[in-house]
Amino acid sequence: MSAHVPIRSDDLVLALDVGGTKLAAAVVTVDGRVLAERRTPSRAERGPDAMIGDHLELAERVLEDARVSRSRLLAVGVACGGPLDRETGVIKSPPNLPGWHEVPLGSLVSQALGVLTVVDNDATAAGLAELFYGSGATDCATNLVYLTISTGVGGGLILNGRPYRGADGNAGELGHVCAVPGGRRCGCGRLGCLEAYVSGSSIADRARESVAAHGEGTDSALLDDPAAITAEAVARAAAAGDRLAGRLWNETTQILGTAVADLLNTFNPDLVVLGGGVTRVGDLLLAPVRRAALSQALPLARATGDVVLTELRDDIAVLGAAALAVEHVQASRPPIGSGGPSGK
Amino acid sequence: MSAHVPIRSDDLVLALDVGGTKLAAAVVTVDGRVLAERRTPSRAERGPDAMIGDHLELAERVLEDARVSRSRLLAVGVACGGPLDRETGVIKSPPNLPGWHEVPLGSLVSQALGVLTVVDNDATAAGLAELFYGSGATDCATNLVYLTISTGVGGGLILNGRPYRGADGNAGELGHVCAVPGGRRCGCGRLGCLEAYVSGSSIADRARESVAAHGEGTDSALLDDPAAITAEAVARAAAAGDRLAGRLWNETTQILGTAVADLLNTFNPDLVVLGGGVTRVGDLLLAPVRRAALSQALPLARATGDVVLTELRDDIAVLGAAALAVEHVQASRPPIGSGGPSGK
Repeated sequence: MSAHVPIRSDDLVLALDVGGTKLAAAVVTVDGRVLAERRTPSRAERGPDAMIGDHLELAERVLEDARVSRSRLLAVGVACGGPLDRETGVIKSPPNLPGWHEVPLGSLVSQALGVLTVVDNDATAAGLAELFYGSGATDCATNLVYLTISTGVGGGLILNGRPYRGADGNAGELGHVCAVPGGRRCGCGRLGCLEAYVSGSSIADRARESVAAHGEGTDSALLDDPAAITAEAVARAAAAGDRLAGRLWNETTQILGTAVADLLNTFNPDLVVLGGGVTRVGDLLLAPVRRAALSQALPLARATGDVVLTELRDDIAVLGAAALAVEHVQASRPPIGSGGPSGK
Repeated sequence: MSAHVPIRSDDLVLALDVGGTKLAAAVVTVDGRVLAERRTPSRAERGPDAMIGDHLELAERVLEDARVSRSRLLAVGVACGGPLDRETGVIKSPPNLPGWHEVPLGSLVSQALGVLTVVDNDATAAGLAELFYGSGATDCATNLVYLTISTGVGGGLILNGRPYRGADGNAGELGHVCAVPGGRRCGCGRLGCLEAYVSGSSIADRARESVAAHGEGTDSALLDDPAAITAEAVARAAAAGDRLAGRLWNETTQILGTAVADLLNTFNPDLVVLGGGVTRVGDLLLAPVRRAALSQALPLARATGDVVLTELRDDIAVLGAAALAVEHVQASRPPIGSGGPSGK
């Protein structure tokens, strides 16, 4: 298509999300309707070649599901864990993808499919999805911080209505700010990172350590099967009155609320949006985190900013990848009509 | 002048800096040469009317010094402590300016001088000065975090080559991020803010508390006259081998270095520039802060970012105010020639 042809709200993009546990592919309209979606386990231990082969096959099948030919696609958006080089589409060495080192994912996908392909960080992608299709669109936000709380903790920054990526594309590493000086050792090597306390795996680890420290004398549901403890189990046990779980969950939400207050004071955003697996417990997480964040933030930051959970739920991964493609095409061709992304 | 006339590097702006302890006025060229500058004590206890009267008189005198008529000015830039409303030029209630409440400073100055006037936060102004005339220009930075460590602690964010101000103009409150969970009470009401540990007055307060706690038995130069302790005195005593001062200064630089690492991981900037009165001790501050920050930051953030002291020193206040005026005029008229601001 010519650069002079405007984008229409029913134009199509292909969205690919490369996760450590699952691969997802979807055909999505520019205004965020998912026409077809497929997922498959990543089986990341097989390394990049097998994963990329599976992902391309998934892409073909989802195009068939939607009865869409490649020639109708405006672009392909690929969301992946960082660090990566967005300009070249090369994935460096994401901690969640063992065996991936300098993988030219962008050119592999564009060559296989014959369609313009853009690659970016999955947290940036999720932030864009919130701006275009989620709370940011509803709220007409132009400044939005997306905080994903999952196996790891990451951030996507939308500032002045655009993704902010920093000097080398690695801005928004919000899991690696210090939450507890001299505290738990993080996977990045630093002491006390936010991720070392509030990621799903860190919450479970902290619970297991607490159970081990308290031993048999404690009356806690978490003692039944320490190996099976999850963040969700801690939240639910806390809500049911379990004292050990209650202490842990309270500590978790206070640490997270303090970090969110820091984001409010630093960015003066319209919205901080929380997403990722740990947020599936809903208000058990949001209510105490929001209360702690707003009570600690400066009056002017809390007057303009709010803290919400993503409404995009499990669609956020493919909507993020789709948003990358849409944003890239929009940079040369402005959208027309009311059905386009409303956050721009 | 017409909006079609390009800016020349020797075009002039008037720079006004409203501080809690001093007022400054200067005539500055677009490329950052200070042609004339005057300062006078603020005597802020007299309230806004007397201060603004003094400042306008200072402006007239500095224009006479430079033999410049008002008609030659492109614009007036006014830097002031926040919170303020940049759109209307109204100063809300800055903590360093008692008695100032909703003062329409922008319109008062523009009416008195008959020149287009822009008002913005002094930390944002200082960030712009670094971008145009300081380390950011030397380094060709487009992403720069300016951290002022003075009576208070504040931040100016230059992201994608432009000031980032947030939803309501109050972004960059970097003194009010949590440095020590549950720690010292900050002036903002929150516990453990960075400002409550590393501002000049907080360092002095912590030193006095430490002296009081250790009492007569301790051998420390700080015991001689606790009321006269300053941040600089603590730094110099630490460098001279004073153990009590050494512990305090080490704690201070570690806390600051940790906060700077958080800025590197969050913004992936080209530069973090440290300025403000506390940085006058030079390498006694920079060396341990830079070491702590770079050792804690993620490899990719420290590969692209560095931590430096401002080279603009005492000129940064008026250069910041000048940069506000230049940036505002540039938004409609791009600079020509090689002498213009080089950071854009």
